[in-house]
Amino acid sequence: MPMSEKAMENVIDQAPVAIISSVDSDGFPNTKAMLPPRKRNGLKEFYFTTNTSSMRVRQYRDNNKACIYFYNKRYYQGIMIVGYMEVLEDQKSKDMIWKDGDELYYPKGVTDPDYCVLKFIGHKIRTYHNFKKDDILI
Amino acid sequence: MPMSEKAMENVIDQAPVAIISSVDSDGFPNTKAMLPPRKRNGLKEFYFTTNTSSMRVRQYRDNNKACIYFYNKRYYQGIMIVGYMEVLEDQKSKDMIWKDGDELYYPKGVTDPDYCVLKFIGHKIRTYHNFKKDDILI
Repeated sequence: MPMSEKAMENVIDQAPVAIISSVDSDGFPNTKAMLPPRKRNGLKEFYFTTNTSSMRVRQYRDNNKACIYFYNKRYYQGIMIVGYMEVLEDQKSKDMIWKDGDELYYPKGVTDPDYCVLKFIGHKIRTYHNFKKDDILI
Repeated sequence: MPMSEKAMENVIDQAPVAIISSVDSDGFPNTKAMLPPRKRNGLKEFYFTTNTSSMRVRQYRDNNKACIYFYNKRYYQGIMIVGYMEVLEDQKSKDMIWKDGDELYYPKGVTDPDYCVLKFIGHKIRTYHNFKKDDILI
């Protein structure tokens, strides 16, 4: 039986990190662990905080093809979502996901030009569960 | 100070999973958690077990650009190595990294045609450590 949407959401919401990937200018995949998403709408839209100056932002501006991945090591469960990543620098988006304590990463606060938002929009999910794979279009 | 080679090896050897990425036929990065490498030579060569029939193997046969990633959540340390992935099906390579118990995944044993070896050869490392990034060519 494929994973239910609820089961997928559980894996995502309980994962201590999000693994995000991009494609660099030489065509190689690049992967990194990030803080979990600050906000998500179902399994389609995810919002992350990041540094505007980061390599990842540069890569997504050049090539917005992306995937995000969450897993539960103990239960051998994994959720990969493939889609596009947008870099948002408008103040409304920045306000939306800012949290107290983010000054640790962005000393100038919510208007810090080095703080921006990554918005991921997925269109395909692959789940790993009970040693089985399932593909789902969203 | 950049991470020492020893510190990088510690992150790799203690990571409960390896995160591996490929690029699919539509140009999207694809990411997955795998069992840790069975064998490695320094920071350049890594050997993994996998299913010959898997999507990942198909992708690497089409496009061998890859990255592997290891992280330590507690200490905010991450090691990304970019390079090429080879799919090896010769018996010598399969024997080299086979372990008792692998029958769980490959019921026909070490000669199971659905068991193969992924050999990763890296040429560039990016480390994340103390909120700093460093790039190293290898």
